[in-house]
Amino acid sequence: MGLIVTDALLDGERVGLRCEGGLIEALGPEVAPGDGEETIDAGGMLLVPPFVNAHTHAAMTLFRGFGDDLPLMEWLEGHIWPAEARLKPEDVYWGTRLAAIEMIRSGTTRFVDMYWHEGEAARAVGDAGLRAVISSVFIDGLDPGKGEGMRPAALAQLDEIQELAAADGRVDATFGPHAIYTVSAESLRWLAEQAAERGLGFSIHLSETQGEVDDCLEAHGIRPAHYLDELGCLGERAILAHGVFLDDAELELIAERGATVAINTSANSKLAVGGAFPYGRAREAGVRVGLGTDGVSSNNNLDMFEEVKLFSLMAKHDSGDPAAAPAGEALEIARGLNSPALGGTPLEPGEPADFLLLDPETPELSVGDLDAGLVYAATGSVVDTTVVAGRALMRGREVEGEAEAIAEVRARAARLTSPP
Amino acid sequence: MGLIVTDALLDGERVGLRCEGGLIEALGPEVAPGDGEETIDAGGMLLVPPFVNAHTHAAMTLFRGFGDDLPLMEWLEGHIWPAEARLKPEDVYWGTRLAAIEMIRSGTTRFVDMYWHEGEAARAVGDAGLRAVISSVFIDGLDPGKGEGMRPAALAQLDEIQELAAADGRVDATFGPHAIYTVSAESLRWLAEQAAERGLGFSIHLSETQGEVDDCLEAHGIRPAHYLDELGCLGERAILAHGVFLDDAELELIAERGATVAINTSANSKLAVGGAFPYGRAREAGVRVGLGTDGVSSNNNLDMFEEVKLFSLMAKHDSGDPAAAPAGEALEIARGLNSPALGGTPLEPGEPADFLLLDPETPELSVGDLDAGLVYAATGSVVDTTVVAGRALMRGREVEGEAEAIAEVRARAARLTSPP
Repeated sequence: MGLIVTDALLDGERVGLRCEGGLIEALGPEVAPGDGEETIDAGGMLLVPPFVNAHTHAAMTLFRGFGDDLPLMEWLEGHIWPAEARLKPEDVYWGTRLAAIEMIRSGTTRFVDMYWHEGEAARAVGDAGLRAVISSVFIDGLDPGKGEGMRPAALAQLDEIQELAAADGRVDATFGPHAIYTVSAESLRWLAEQAAERGLGFSIHLSETQGEVDDCLEAHGIRPAHYLDELGCLGERAILAHGVFLDDAELELIAERGATVAINTSANSKLAVGGAFPYGRAREAGVRVGLGTDGVSSNNNLDMFEEVKLFSLMAKHDSGDPAAAPAGEALEIARGLNSPALGGTPLEPGEPADFLLLDPETPELSVGDLDAGLVYAATGSVVDTTVVAGRALMRGREVEGEAEAIAEVRARAARLTSPP
Repeated sequence: MGLIVTDALLDGERVGLRCEGGLIEALGPEVAPGDGEETIDAGGMLLVPPFVNAHTHAAMTLFRGFGDDLPLMEWLEGHIWPAEARLKPEDVYWGTRLAAIEMIRSGTTRFVDMYWHEGEAARAVGDAGLRAVISSVFIDGLDPGKGEGMRPAALAQLDEIQELAAADGRVDATFGPHAIYTVSAESLRWLAEQAAERGLGFSIHLSETQGEVDDCLEAHGIRPAHYLDELGCLGERAILAHGVFLDDAELELIAERGATVAINTSANSKLAVGGAFPYGRAREAGVRVGLGTDGVSSNNNLDMFEEVKLFSLMAKHDSGDPAAAPAGEALEIARGLNSPALGGTPLEPGEPADFLLLDPETPELSVGDLDAGLVYAATGSVVDTTVVAGRALMRGREVEGEAEAIAEVRARAARLTSPP
């Protein structure tokens, strides 16, 4: 049975939308309610494409508001790492489940994740009805021997995610080496080869701090993007998170290879890394980009409305140009439509039936240009209905299982963040 | 008849709160429901002080999403000024009314306003049940003769606002010279004298762009804050909006005089003025500060949750210190508690009965430090109940008159923003 939406507002026109088999089958003023099919009367709500969160660590909802406003290493060593050492697979399930609910509530239908126990993350995404690119995280502490020993487990985890992926088609498995300062060259090369062989993606942190660049120059004589390229890691399916300290030659190389940078403006500002992604230069070089919230312990939410606003404002602030990253362009990026690797899809027949209905009867969306309203005025609370693969995951701001997920995360966070 | 709130969570403790005559009469675990009094069962919601918006042009809800992403002068000359020239007093009433509703929805109970036809703004604030500092705006185009001719009308407008203020005690009248580049020295001196005589405040834009500083240096040989001081404008009741380009000597002078700077991080970034308020240096100098959203045509919302996050993130980004403007400090500033001129009040018996009840059963506030949750994770949508002077203006996210205000603003915005 398909889903039919009637009386939605798309580009100023009243339209209907029919979903079948998880895809948009028809879209236009002629689409009318069908017999015996599930129908949503949009009552004039705005029909728009959803967001793609290009970089996050979803299960970190367990550590929200835990050790904020501390110097980076004090936060990691004194708070996050000891707590993560106590993580059990079920914690990751519930952390990811609550993250999925938060994303559904704020209009994100697909996200690129990197964390521990990602089989559980994949299961949570499946149960929540969302889409995700789930990476089997890999850290060998720059020890190639240790890295070699980890390979079987890494492949087993990948297989686990791929099995879940095959089950319903909403989860993609990908490789997730953490960063060039935590993974040896040998392991990076092996992971890149594995990804190429299996036709899978590759998600990695890159150039988040100046220290990473300096260390790379000292150890290898080249900058991080060139180092990754030498190891075969910069393909079209690579998603590079942060990229704050990329220079022009690196941006050109990344553009040439067709890799994607996931920009994390909020997290970079909150952690005070000392800069923001050089959007103007990247745009000129033709780099594909997306936006990520990063984990909630360095943001502290998963609201892409907030992220796209901060991205656009930071691009203007940094360049001194109020016309930089204008609303329409920023939205295209936030919707994952600027890069095929992110898997964003437009509202068109034949495309996945992923979309949002927004409430225009709010002060934020009451008047003016819609794109400007979405980027500069609205927050996630304007989303009334979130549909993924033709299934409504939220209607009237109610998401199934929210109270249970909050209770589970509360109990687990209390255990994880208490000194043992 | 008073209002009683039961079962609210304050600093981890279940408390009740009793209001009488617009003030908090009692607050603590011992406060119980009274006979025949209006009672709100908070059901474990979080009881917190509200925000004070230290600088806005409320009625600009009429121009939201109108001419975004344009160079500053093209936006002002091609869009905003021609539209403002068509403003009628009733437009300002409805624009301000919708702004008040948006503020109630996002937890702001008091704001400092500067716009045209402010008698109507004062009426809208009165009807909405909010508090505001309303300024009778003054621009003489640097023509002292014209300025002298405007004095009777300026005083008449002030009297009108003061009359409304006397009626219910929620509106304060203040003087509102626009800026040093739009108001002559003679008029600024006269306005400062009038303010001092009447014991009223003074609200003015200051040092928003480098051009303003350069022009001031060229015309007067001194920087803007020193120029204002020579004219007697830097008293304890002065609220200076923006202050992006203040140097250390100016910050010290402002601190010495006890004036307050209203920081507008979102608007400064969106308009790409080329900098942000130097919070670190201002804090060291002891400058009193508050946060403002500015008008929605340069923000584009009135959500102080978003503003306080951006303020804190920009302070960290600019200083390279992740511990700059920590959550508790940022909240104190956003609540108007850092300066007596802003009129923020704490939750204590004898203080005005202005407060919020927030929904903790949300992903954003599910775990972690509450201050961090409010600054970094929450948006205005976590506010369930907004109370001003012991009267609930919103419960369960329903504000009276919202649909009517949206319809009025839509119709008026369509007229104002259409070419004549």
